[in-house]
Amino acid sequence: MKKRRIVIITEGNTDPTPAKTAVGVIRYRTGEVVALIDSTQAGRDTGELLGVGNGIPIMASLTETFRLQPDMLLIGTAWAGGQIPTAWRATILSAIEHGLDIVSGMHQFLNDDEEFKKAAQKHRVELIDLRKTPDDLTVSKCLAKEQKCFRVHTVGTDCNVGKKVVCLELTRAFQEKKKDAVFVGTGQTGIFITGSGIALDRVIGDFIAGAAERLVLENTNHDYLFIEGQGAITHPLYSGVTLSMLHGFMPQALILVHEYGRPIMRGSKDTPVLPPEKLIPLYESIAAPVFPTKVIAVALNLRRLDDRAALKEIEKVETNTGLPATDVIKFGTEKLEEAVLRFEGEWRKEHALD
Amino acid sequence: MKKRRIVIITEGNTDPTPAKTAVGVIRYRTGEVVALIDSTQAGRDTGELLGVGNGIPIMASLTETFRLQPDMLLIGTAWAGGQIPTAWRATILSAIEHGLDIVSGMHQFLNDDEEFKKAAQKHRVELIDLRKTPDDLTVSKCLAKEQKCFRVHTVGTDCNVGKKVVCLELTRAFQEKKKDAVFVGTGQTGIFITGSGIALDRVIGDFIAGAAERLVLENTNHDYLFIEGQGAITHPLYSGVTLSMLHGFMPQALILVHEYGRPIMRGSKDTPVLPPEKLIPLYESIAAPVFPTKVIAVALNLRRLDDRAALKEIEKVETNTGLPATDVIKFGTEKLEEAVLRFEGEWRKEHALD
Repeated sequence: MKKRRIVIITEGNTDPTPAKTAVGVIRYRTGEVVALIDSTQAGRDTGELLGVGNGIPIMASLTETFRLQPDMLLIGTAWAGGQIPTAWRATILSAIEHGLDIVSGMHQFLNDDEEFKKAAQKHRVELIDLRKTPDDLTVSKCLAKEQKCFRVHTVGTDCNVGKKVVCLELTRAFQEKKKDAVFVGTGQTGIFITGSGIALDRVIGDFIAGAAERLVLENTNHDYLFIEGQGAITHPLYSGVTLSMLHGFMPQALILVHEYGRPIMRGSKDTPVLPPEKLIPLYESIAAPVFPTKVIAVALNLRRLDDRAALKEIEKVETNTGLPATDVIKFGTEKLEEAVLRFEGEWRKEHALD
Repeated sequence: MKKRRIVIITEGNTDPTPAKTAVGVIRYRTGEVVALIDSTQAGRDTGELLGVGNGIPIMASLTETFRLQPDMLLIGTAWAGGQIPTAWRATILSAIEHGLDIVSGMHQFLNDDEEFKKAAQKHRVELIDLRKTPDDLTVSKCLAKEQKCFRVHTVGTDCNVGKKVVCLELTRAFQEKKKDAVFVGTGQTGIFITGSGIALDRVIGDFIAGAAERLVLENTNHDYLFIEGQGAITHPLYSGVTLSMLHGFMPQALILVHEYGRPIMRGSKDTPVLPPEKLIPLYESIAAPVFPTKVIAVALNLRRLDDRAALKEIEKVETNTGLPATDVIKFGTEKLEEAVLRFEGEWRKEHALD
């Protein structure tokens, strides 16, 4: 992928939860993000507010960022419903007029907006809608299970807990060890980071499992697929997307991702986040009739804890679940790599006779 | 709703499974269907082939039906993927030219087809896409659970087992007893029969639960909502739609619908249909974290059995599940009505203190 000079608008939302797209891009398109735009935080450092991006300045306006010669503006937030805030339109239009390509992961498409489209044509810039899905999607043919590639799918106890990060970290670790691994993007941020994938939460209901299947078939030449999860099977807003993916990908192994210290499902009124030991049997029992899969490890997001408290929490989760657990950002991916390779070995042995 | 004179095209597919839309419309828009078009079955009687519609002729071509003065052509099939067969285009165009409105429940919209659209404008007929969904759908706000209306939702062990029929029969039975009940349509056939609803399998993933919630909020002035289900929670093609609906509707009660003698999920390669006693705990356990719901009865579709064998099967299912069971077409809705009223009484008592 061509290196870009990206400014990210996070106006009034420079916080890891609403700005999760910004966080992902800063972490994995290292060196490409030149500034953030947020007039409410101007002058502060990105690393301080988002936990990643030390040294990336936060500026008050698009105009200020021009001296850094950006060539792309990314909408850095992701919220329920996915509408572009009206107050941001002027910034987007100004970016177009100054020759920046615009990237959005919103449900509301840039390319459906006549004003943006006209301006983009005039100034010859690209409008990139990360959530735009292929036109020829259809229902699943149940083909994923026949593929020999080893599919590891991250699933969550909530949305926005780190499912994409775990997959990206594992893909990187496997690739560094010269294993043929690929990250399979299923959401706007993962697609922007890696340049491929389908935003499955944007696909119409009947075709989500089919779109998941297509992502497997497109990557079946690789040995390991690390497939980004979406939502959670008990999330009152998004559960259906999660389940369609589980049944469409037909993964051999799941890694359950859980954030410490989040009592209520993001975006819900009062739906509790279940602890890993309660959610594991739910995921396994709902997957089994279609394709048996096993939760092989728990990936914890312990950003709220210091290292000592984090280690204690890991021990607790390992005791409660009987599975290896870790935080890949704090302690690396080694434990999860081992869990994947161990289970893959068992699985291939068991299925060698098939 | 204005009475129409409907011809239904089921060409080469006059069988209850592919022609499920035809079956539903014949059963519930009584007297409005004047003929079927199927050149492979011309001269035979609809009742003989579909089990409903005695006396409705099957004709070889659209032209033949003109003497019955139809004013509407309905595409009577519903299959995975929802594309209009190319061979049917000539019939559809001819119907338009002869002044018939066209109704389709396909994923491929009549109104997206330039040739159909132009012809319809010229001949001033309507193109009705039953699966077209509202443009302003968004995510769920988890409001359904706050509504006092009693929500009974049919769920299945497979798709196409009779979930809509059970809801329509129960609605009719309740209305006959002067209870304020309404059928909530969620699929193309139910929408055509009752004139309202949203085709939830057509909604984009993130918004299905929100669309389900909207259907509740639009009907909250009624005492009883009988909400048509879609797919099955273990269906490899459609499970996500089913789960989004379960979490969006937040029904107090579920009725599990099961067809006897169907070993494999429709449209799948080899996914087994689970027996009711195995599926009931799955539905209840996946619903519970969002809104606790209970399966209160099993509605069996025993069309493959004679009455004696049917009664034996009912007894078997009642023993296995500990729940009342019946076939509403063979034996009426009484048992299910009782189950609904009994459970409603318990539920209202339990929640009176809230």
